[in-house]
Amino acid sequence: MQAARRTIPQILIEAIKGILGAKGWIADPEQMAPLLADQRGLYRGKSPLVVRPASTAEVAAVVRLCAHYHVPIVPQGGNTSLVGGSVPHEAGGEILLSLSRMNHILAVDPIDYTMTVQAGCVLADIQQAAQVVDRLFPLSLGAEGSCEIGGNLSTNAGGVNVIRYGCARDLVLGLEVVLSDGRIWHGLKALRKDNTGYDLKQLFLGAEGTLGIITAAVLKLFPKPREIQTAFCAVTSLEAALTLLAKTRAATGDALTAFELMPRVGFEFVLKHIPGTSDPFAQSAEWYVLMELCSARSDAGLRQTLEHNLAEALEEALVSNAVLAESVAQARALWRLRESLPEAEKQEGGSIKHDVSVPVSSVPEFIHTATARVKKAMPNIRVVAFGHVGDGNIHFNLSQPEGADKSAFLAEWGRFNRIVHDLVHELNGSISAEHGIGRLKCNELKRYKNPVELELMRRIKKTLDPDNLFNPGKLIADPEKP
Amino acid sequence: MQAARRTIPQILIEAIKGILGAKGWIADPEQMAPLLADQRGLYRGKSPLVVRPASTAEVAAVVRLCAHYHVPIVPQGGNTSLVGGSVPHEAGGEILLSLSRMNHILAVDPIDYTMTVQAGCVLADIQQAAQVVDRLFPLSLGAEGSCEIGGNLSTNAGGVNVIRYGCARDLVLGLEVVLSDGRIWHGLKALRKDNTGYDLKQLFLGAEGTLGIITAAVLKLFPKPREIQTAFCAVTSLEAALTLLAKTRAATGDALTAFELMPRVGFEFVLKHIPGTSDPFAQSAEWYVLMELCSARSDAGLRQTLEHNLAEALEEALVSNAVLAESVAQARALWRLRESLPEAEKQEGGSIKHDVSVPVSSVPEFIHTATARVKKAMPNIRVVAFGHVGDGNIHFNLSQPEGADKSAFLAEWGRFNRIVHDLVHELNGSISAEHGIGRLKCNELKRYKNPVELELMRRIKKTLDPDNLFNPGKLIADPEKP
Repeated sequence: MQAARRTIPQILIEAIKGILGAKGWIADPEQMAPLLADQRGLYRGKSPLVVRPASTAEVAAVVRLCAHYHVPIVPQGGNTSLVGGSVPHEAGGEILLSLSRMNHILAVDPIDYTMTVQAGCVLADIQQAAQVVDRLFPLSLGAEGSCEIGGNLSTNAGGVNVIRYGCARDLVLGLEVVLSDGRIWHGLKALRKDNTGYDLKQLFLGAEGTLGIITAAVLKLFPKPREIQTAFCAVTSLEAALTLLAKTRAATGDALTAFELMPRVGFEFVLKHIPGTSDPFAQSAEWYVLMELCSARSDAGLRQTLEHNLAEALEEALVSNAVLAESVAQARALWRLRESLPEAEKQEGGSIKHDVSVPVSSVPEFIHTATARVKKAMPNIRVVAFGHVGDGNIHFNLSQPEGADKSAFLAEWGRFNRIVHDLVHELNGSISAEHGIGRLKCNELKRYKNPVELELMRRIKKTLDPDNLFNPGKLIADPEKP
Repeated sequence: MQAARRTIPQILIEAIKGILGAKGWIADPEQMAPLLADQRGLYRGKSPLVVRPASTAEVAAVVRLCAHYHVPIVPQGGNTSLVGGSVPHEAGGEILLSLSRMNHILAVDPIDYTMTVQAGCVLADIQQAAQVVDRLFPLSLGAEGSCEIGGNLSTNAGGVNVIRYGCARDLVLGLEVVLSDGRIWHGLKALRKDNTGYDLKQLFLGAEGTLGIITAAVLKLFPKPREIQTAFCAVTSLEAALTLLAKTRAATGDALTAFELMPRVGFEFVLKHIPGTSDPFAQSAEWYVLMELCSARSDAGLRQTLEHNLAEALEEALVSNAVLAESVAQARALWRLRESLPEAEKQEGGSIKHDVSVPVSSVPEFIHTATARVKKAMPNIRVVAFGHVGDGNIHFNLSQPEGADKSAFLAEWGRFNRIVHDLVHELNGSISAEHGIGRLKCNELKRYKNPVELELMRRIKKTLDPDNLFNPGKLIADPEKP
């Protein structure tokens, strides 16, 4: 389908405007501009119209009209995709459908531990609404102040609490979805157990808007943590970090909610560029771990458990030094060492990024081998491998050699992708752990996904969206042929 | 497709025997008999051949041959289905494919917290293998001594730990599946995060063998519990039970692993029929709750938390009495009160069973209304509503009036199904919370599932199994037309 290259019929545009009313659309180029460009500045799409429906019925009406005229739709939430998943193609043949006006929290039930939300709710607002009734919605990630839940669910977002609570997919009980023929699937159930056939919601979760438009969801809530303990540790090796992870899970099991890895070089970037940060240790180490334990009990004695666990880890030479946060402010300061790393990285010039995962126990092998291979290709490259090691998810980022030319370095993106992704593939890992495929990684997906899987995906796409109406050119299509 | 009514060509049978060798098949009627009858004695199927492949390659070879001759296959694990999902049709036109010889645990990784198993592994063996490396595989249900993991995953089994660890679906990282054209999908990944396209494994989990044959899986493990606390409480009302549940989750959150409801009438059945049981309380109550808290920490002080929580619940008049297990033996005795209920029920004559779920907070409304409606239909009927109330999953069982004729009572099965399922439907619940649809509930599913959902299910079936080769007549087909 070459729809993205076609002109959108004026009669369709007028019909949509008529249905949605003045608040329901934007056609002013200046107002549309921020919605047409992706967050990383890699793509700048075109569209004659941004539609902003206020209800599921309006979304369905727009889809029916677009289906009639064979005009594709790009659904968009907070537009925080890191892979160009939420902006239209530059050919200008797609309608951009923003869910942002559908931002109502429909119900919060603390007895059920559930919340029902529209797709356009901002993640931070959902977290806040849970907090108000003494509950936790655990999905948490950098973009939480602007990303919207529909996008989080469509991309199966990850973030920092996955080790304890799972990805976005795991936090959903029910969905409401507009299908490619404009019908609404009313799957907004709040059931913990339902074995009446195929679990249809799983098809739309993580599908990056290519199979249906998620308009609402029933989310799982959890007890609100009452005790939080945070520690920053210098570990003696990558292998030691992994042993510490397994040991800490076993000793504190139900309580470990974050286990983040950070290399010395990244830590130095932070110390150098981020005001108010300092090294808590007298001696430097090659690798650091930030861990957090949470309990919904106020009397769980987590502090003591963590101290005991770290004392053992010191004796066993897994850890060479450790500091425990003594206050909320100190915990924030420790998190800042980890969370400001991407910002600090920017100050050091160009960075070639990889969002990969391997089985947790393969993390040391992956980092050692990948480091050796990229250094062979460019001896002075600076490897900044960090991230959610508790999930086997490493942001294997490569900073340019000191003093190198940024754009010349970034021109090597493809070559280093190949080195890193080839290794990930050898280790039975994933070339996109949490950011998805979008448009950026379509070709990488075709290269590494096994042919049976690709074919099954294409058949499912064909079954649910036979006319390729939803987000064409993303996820499974050839990015050059939207 | 009317394949189930056709004769199976002898040439196919000989070809399969040739590939699998002497150990790979059974044709002796006496040996086949237990595999052809379902556990509840509702169905007695026919088949000329039970095949018992020893490897995924052999499963694939059998599927390719059957596909060629258009002969359907019924996959079978431990044959513990409660809805006739794992036995062939009585017309005799299907091959029964048992996975029981594929019972090897392929890998256990305590650092990864994963285990890789073949589909024919018995659930209890998997639990045991996790235990050996100081880990927990939390899926736990009545049939665990004989059910097999392939069946557990194909039916998305539930059980007693769902409130903390989720259903079978939630415990899987990767799958290996033989597709309907005999190709193998190699999806045995051990990744915690992988956002590279549609999550194909979700299609096969819970599909009751109608979309593919699961041959192996990578399972999630958890830290092994070190402290377990068990309490049996008399609650003051159903509403109080629900408040107690929400309160206990909040106060002990990460630790509540079971919350089971039991009515006085069921408790009396147990006291009357199960030797060695006794009422721990001097006064009787209308409703009881069995709760269990687990922690992977040995120093978590759960006992104190539970005592404190129950003391508050007594003050708040949620609970009228409570007993805490002082030993493992006492905990077992308390669990026996709950677990022997189905056995005790049998001694009281016929029982019309419902495995339903509603949103957790709707449980009191469901039980009150359903009880009133069935008593209106038959005043002396004895309502035994019990089960996993923490998941909103009630086994709403109806015991015959005292002294009534058993078969006359059981002849009313359809009438009471209608009363109960109609109410479940009104409350946006599920007519099969954990047992699945199989053959028994095909017509009920068609009645209650919304048409959009049924159509999507049919399209997916058509996409993945266009010739209706896998388990025809189950889940989505007309049970009278396999």
